Amino acid sequence: MAKGDRIAVIGGGLIGTSWAALFMAWGHDVALFEHDETSRKAIPRAIRGPIGQVAELASGLPAPGRLHLADSLEDAVTGAAWIQENVPEKVPLKRAIYAAIETAAPAGVTIASSTSSLVWSELSADMADPSRLITAHPFNPPHLMPLVEMFGPDAARVQAAAAFYRSLGRHPVFLRREAVGHIANRLSSALWREAVNMVAEGIADVDQIDAALVHGPGLRWSVVGAHMAYHLGGGAGGIGHYLSHLGPSQERRWQDLGQPRLDAATCARLVDGIAAEAGGRDIATLEALRDAGLIAVQRALREKRP
Amino acid sequence: MAKGDRIAVIGGGLIGTSWAALFMAWGHDVALFEHDETSRKAIPRAIRGPIGQVAELASGLPAPGRLHLADSLEDAVTGAAWIQENVPEKVPLKRAIYAAIETAAPAGVTIASSTSSLVWSELSADMADPSRLITAHPFNPPHLMPLVEMFGPDAARVQAAAAFYRSLGRHPVFLRREAVGHIANRLSSALWREAVNMVAEGIADVDQIDAALVHGPGLRWSVVGAHMAYHLGGGAGGIGHYLSHLGPSQERRWQDLGQPRLDAATCARLVDGIAAEAGGRDIATLEALRDAGLIAVQRALREKRP
Repeated sequence: MAKGDRIAVIGGGLIGTSWAALFMAWGHDVALFEHDETSRKAIPRAIRGPIGQVAELASGLPAPGRLHLADSLEDAVTGAAWIQENVPEKVPLKRAIYAAIETAAPAGVTIASSTSSLVWSELSADMADPSRLITAHPFNPPHLMPLVEMFGPDAARVQAAAAFYRSLGRHPVFLRREAVGHIANRLSSALWREAVNMVAEGIADVDQIDAALVHGPGLRWSVVGAHMAYHLGGGAGGIGHYLSHLGPSQERRWQDLGQPRLDAATCARLVDGIAAEAGGRDIATLEALRDAGLIAVQRALREKRP
Repeated sequence: MAKGDRIAVIGGGLIGTSWAALFMAWGHDVALFEHDETSRKAIPRAIRGPIGQVAELASGLPAPGRLHLADSLEDAVTGAAWIQENVPEKVPLKRAIYAAIETAAPAGVTIASSTSSLVWSELSADMADPSRLITAHPFNPPHLMPLVEMFGPDAARVQAAAAFYRSLGRHPVFLRREAVGHIANRLSSALWREAVNMVAEGIADVDQIDAALVHGPGLRWSVVGAHMAYHLGGGAGGIGHYLSHLGPSQERRWQDLGQPRLDAATCARLVDGIAAEAGGRDIATLEALRDAGLIAVQRALREKRP
């Protein structure tokens, strides 16, 4: 991406708008297409806060890029040097969007899909040049969360995309093969299953489980990953020692984890538990606290992770 | 706990030494009993660093308390106002220790077990006064991690213990009923199972999985818990909207998670993966980076969590 190159953002929901804020904060002009007119009109106002948040996290940013609200997909992608797709998670819809992009966009420009729940092989099946497509899944909200999970069959294209995301302060990671939920949402689902299980089984309340995570493993995992944590928990012998001495007890512990259902009774407990944890604070208030926390942690951790 | 009261720490391994450092940094005198003489002699030197780290996290600390290396369990607990037990995770050993404590310690003083993998009912079975025992599981290392997970049948005693831990800058959470692994290790095990599964299945390498966690969900969970994260990810309708619209897809996602074994091939992949992630850095270097990160995040997050 050279200076002055235009980025097309297709789909202006939460994810698309957040990506657009990130691109603009780093000086790129953005052409954004959102088919719903009410949503589209709200974007210029909604994007101001996120652009300001990026500036809290990064120093030495250039002047923000400009936003062009495109009238059509073709208008957005014509002349684009990068295309980030964020339309709803429906295979036929995304395939139709890629066909339209292949017709209108410059040949060879990368199409990066933000898909969270679909995989490359499903999405690329009808493309004239499937190698143009990569999956590049951000963690919500993309302008505050550094993670971008990447997969594509063309290694050089994936590496070039990673370099672009790194230039925006992102931290790309790479899958060896495609998987539903990529990496992070698989980890999140696995943890939340047990969090739900403990509520369903009456082991602990919602707010206590959240507090245990935030002041325990979540705090640790903001600094070191789960594998590395076991390496450092194994004493001088590291993970090799851990696996040989405590591997069997870990396997027994796995057997003790639950397989909850999200039935009506469990859902009611979750809703009531969140109400108790929120303590009357509305979602906007909680989101603002979350965002301030995410910014504070990232500022604190610069250069401090193993 | 009044000023000048003495705390008995039974077992001077990693956990006992870290607790002792925390107690001393907050001005309490500690009587520590460790039966292994070589280990016992190393403690006065090993404890200096952790005491200094507590001071990096807390302001307004009093002058540190004194350390008495006790010659016997009886010496340690005689006159103690609080007893924190950290001996190896063996039921007969812990039961024998509690019997000795009940004979030698002042009547009614709380015995708090740091057990990570045993539960209250197993541990208390032979006690003259089982109500004296609580489980108070810290997250390693206790002097840097705020979490203490608590369970006991005597609600007033548990609440008094929680007040004591809060006075040391800890964040106690409460189980409604005892559970193997309490809360945090159940969450950790559940997440690590899928992290191992992705390595075993060749979806991603160890270092990429750790990076995805640290820059994605781990970062988020240092600020907001897993339940709250779904509340904030559900739009204006919160977790109720999330559960009714995406509950079924979450249940399908749970079905797609793996059930790995820690067999020789998977263990070899984990060990090799950690070696690649460590990149030649030894455990002491990585631990120092971890500790600096944990301190930095907690300083940054004061007053910033929802």
